[in-house]
Amino acid sequence: MAVGTFRLQAACTRFSSIAPATALHRFPLASSLYSHGLHLGASVSCNAVQQQVQSTTEKQQKQETSQFQKGQKKVQQESVTPRSQDFNMWYLDVIAAAELADYGPVRGTMVIRPYGYAIWEAIQNYLDAKFKETEHYNMYFPQFIPYSFIEKEASHVEGFSPELALVTIGGGKELEEKLVVRPTSETIVNHMFTQWIHSYRDLPLKINQWVNVTRWEMRTKPFVRTLEFLWQEGHTGHATEEEAEEEALQMIEVYRKFAVEEAAIPVIVGRKSKLETFAGAVRTYTIEAMMGDRKALQAGTSHNLGQNFSRAFNTQFLDSQGEQQYIWQTSWAISTRMVGGIIMTHGDDMGLMLPPRLAPIQVVIIPIWKTDAEKETVLAAATSVHDQLKKEGVRTKVDASEQKTPGWKFNFWEMKVFLSDFHDLFLLIFVW
Amino acid sequence: MAVGTFRLQAACTRFSSIAPATALHRFPLASSLYSHGLHLGASVSCNAVQQQVQSTTEKQQKQETSQFQKGQKKVQQESVTPRSQDFNMWYLDVIAAAELADYGPVRGTMVIRPYGYAIWEAIQNYLDAKFKETEHYNMYFPQFIPYSFIEKEASHVEGFSPELALVTIGGGKELEEKLVVRPTSETIVNHMFTQWIHSYRDLPLKINQWVNVTRWEMRTKPFVRTLEFLWQEGHTGHATEEEAEEEALQMIEVYRKFAVEEAAIPVIVGRKSKLETFAGAVRTYTIEAMMGDRKALQAGTSHNLGQNFSRAFNTQFLDSQGEQQYIWQTSWAISTRMVGGIIMTHGDDMGLMLPPRLAPIQVVIIPIWKTDAEKETVLAAATSVHDQLKKEGVRTKVDASEQKTPGWKFNFWEMKVFLSDFHDLFLLIFVW
Repeated sequence: MAVGTFRLQAACTRFSSIAPATALHRFPLASSLYSHGLHLGASVSCNAVQQQVQSTTEKQQKQETSQFQKGQKKVQQESVTPRSQDFNMWYLDVIAAAELADYGPVRGTMVIRPYGYAIWEAIQNYLDAKFKETEHYNMYFPQFIPYSFIEKEASHVEGFSPELALVTIGGGKELEEKLVVRPTSETIVNHMFTQWIHSYRDLPLKINQWVNVTRWEMRTKPFVRTLEFLWQEGHTGHATEEEAEEEALQMIEVYRKFAVEEAAIPVIVGRKSKLETFAGAVRTYTIEAMMGDRKALQAGTSHNLGQNFSRAFNTQFLDSQGEQQYIWQTSWAISTRMVGGIIMTHGDDMGLMLPPRLAPIQVVIIPIWKTDAEKETVLAAATSVHDQLKKEGVRTKVDASEQKTPGWKFNFWEMKVFLSDFHDLFLLIFVW
Repeated sequence: MAVGTFRLQAACTRFSSIAPATALHRFPLASSLYSHGLHLGASVSCNAVQQQVQSTTEKQQKQETSQFQKGQKKVQQESVTPRSQDFNMWYLDVIAAAELADYGPVRGTMVIRPYGYAIWEAIQNYLDAKFKETEHYNMYFPQFIPYSFIEKEASHVEGFSPELALVTIGGGKELEEKLVVRPTSETIVNHMFTQWIHSYRDLPLKINQWVNVTRWEMRTKPFVRTLEFLWQEGHTGHATEEEAEEEALQMIEVYRKFAVEEAAIPVIVGRKSKLETFAGAVRTYTIEAMMGDRKALQAGTSHNLGQNFSRAFNTQFLDSQGEQQYIWQTSWAISTRMVGGIIMTHGDDMGLMLPPRLAPIQVVIIPIWKTDAEKETVLAAATSVHDQLKKEGVRTKVDASEQKTPGWKFNFWEMKVFLSDFHDLFLLIFVW
């Protein structure tokens, strides 16, 4: 039995981009893996083990590389159109092959599968913490909005009415007033704000909700544009115009930072043209990203709503001078479209590549054995490494299923989680 | 300036139920508060400070008690009907006074306000971790279900058809097939499971989703029964009947443990009668709790679905002997109704009482000052204590707003978060 082979794809970005050899010294985990090899192997010095493992790694890598190339070719032939060949087809193939999403039974709807949803959860975890740090509170508004609400703000109804889904029957009876299935919540938010806000003491009011929204899109594309999608929508009310503008800018900066630092997507922050401004807003700020096909993707927006909705819904407060004033508002959103943006920014001909901080799985351990005796030793080692990595906060999976061959697993995981751009995934292969 | 006054309502349950005096020694935080007082006060020994503070506390408590009683009477008169007088009215009053929820514009809908939503988030945090520990993956199914799906399982359509909300217009056009707004997801889940499950290797398949659901209820009550509510729904597919039964029992046990240990609600685990079994299930397990009005509340259910849905949707797999078999299934859910259960179990005449582990705020610090010089010292002390408590993982709020009097704050927070039953909230009052 060999001591062990690890294919270390450099270290985590949090230890900066460093070469594998250096990583062994700088990344305590990597060292502990070597010690672990030593423990299972023979009594050689740590340096010797490192050298041994390194040389094994080099030799092994050649074999693996050819195995991977063979596998990838097979995967490509079978399922993933190369990105360079047909970007749109590649995008759909990657989503299917990496099991990120599937088509729902209703045209334009999408089932977000566990691996795709885990990316969304990582997005949620980061943003939710940032919203709370900036003193926004989560809450929940009903998704059914009386049709008359939508009509109250002129440009809002103009923008949204072609995209509405309407509930007309409830509990077996025709409804007196049609209900709009939430396309966005400014109207119902203002209806409630009007009841909650009375004086300047009630301001600012800063809330957020994580919900599903429905827009009857005709041309749909998984994650990018679907009939129903998930998002967060922040809504705030302020006493002054300046404060609202400051809030809108603060939130687009939260989005920019998220896109660049977490999703590793370079974005340009800017202001939307009049035509592309949100229906009901005074100004819309946006982060725009360039996808692998060189097309731009609107990845997040923050709106200064001015007093448009407060005037339509009569949302007033008594200022400190005792005067009635309309509140100043903002709203801002990031949606599951971001998952599409991540795929289209980082993926390559081979399949999906995920930014390490959002990757649901950062390390995959594929144990390899022949005999039952080997199995026991190898699985114990795999579990032990898994536990060490987990303890260090690395999201790790041992794929020990016996129904698939290691070759199949390499190809599958390579396509699903590999992050060669970021040097932030380890693929550890145990050949004991 | 006095050294400082703390009204310590005993220690956290995690330090067990112990008297305040003991708590000072056993709970390092409490000691550090005294040291803090010492630091701000004069050079007296720690014991002396303890005695001083304790005696101050006793004297102060009388004043506070009368202040509280006065305040509570006022609050009761103004807003909260005593529980002993009219349970239903009390329930609605508490929800309004503690700002947990409000009525939405559409009959039977509910806006969950930040304080109520934070309780739901605490429920989610605990359960989501447990679901992941038991290897369930989160995902998302579309909320629009073709009407024909609902009709496929006979008892399912019978049970749910009177409660459906139907979308009949989308994008300005009458739809060819009505869409059901998700009342529960067994049908769409099975539609997808049929595509994903082919062989025994694909089983078990264990998923969960956190979503909104709609049931057109005629008699509604905030949290307990609303037209739209939030819940999690777990769905699993198994190769054998035994495995499905084991899963259904495992999940009702997760719910029981949650109810008892986190929500501090005693529950009885049992099996629903034929009449109350979920529409489409073979067996429904339930946790039933007794509310303050001695009525039972169904607080969570776990269903063994047998092969009812797999036969209706033709969800088959090739077993290890090469035979086609229908899968065995479960589903299980806990909803925002749990928030109602918490209110109705723990609240008293004075208002809301929350189980400490789910309380969004466990400690409220109300600084009191007269002069500007006092203000600076008091706020610095309050912030310092806040930071120490936060570091210890205690959810703490400093209410330093100058627009409300301390008396108003006592009453407000007493009603909103006080936990006298559990001896798990500190109300710290700084009178420097």
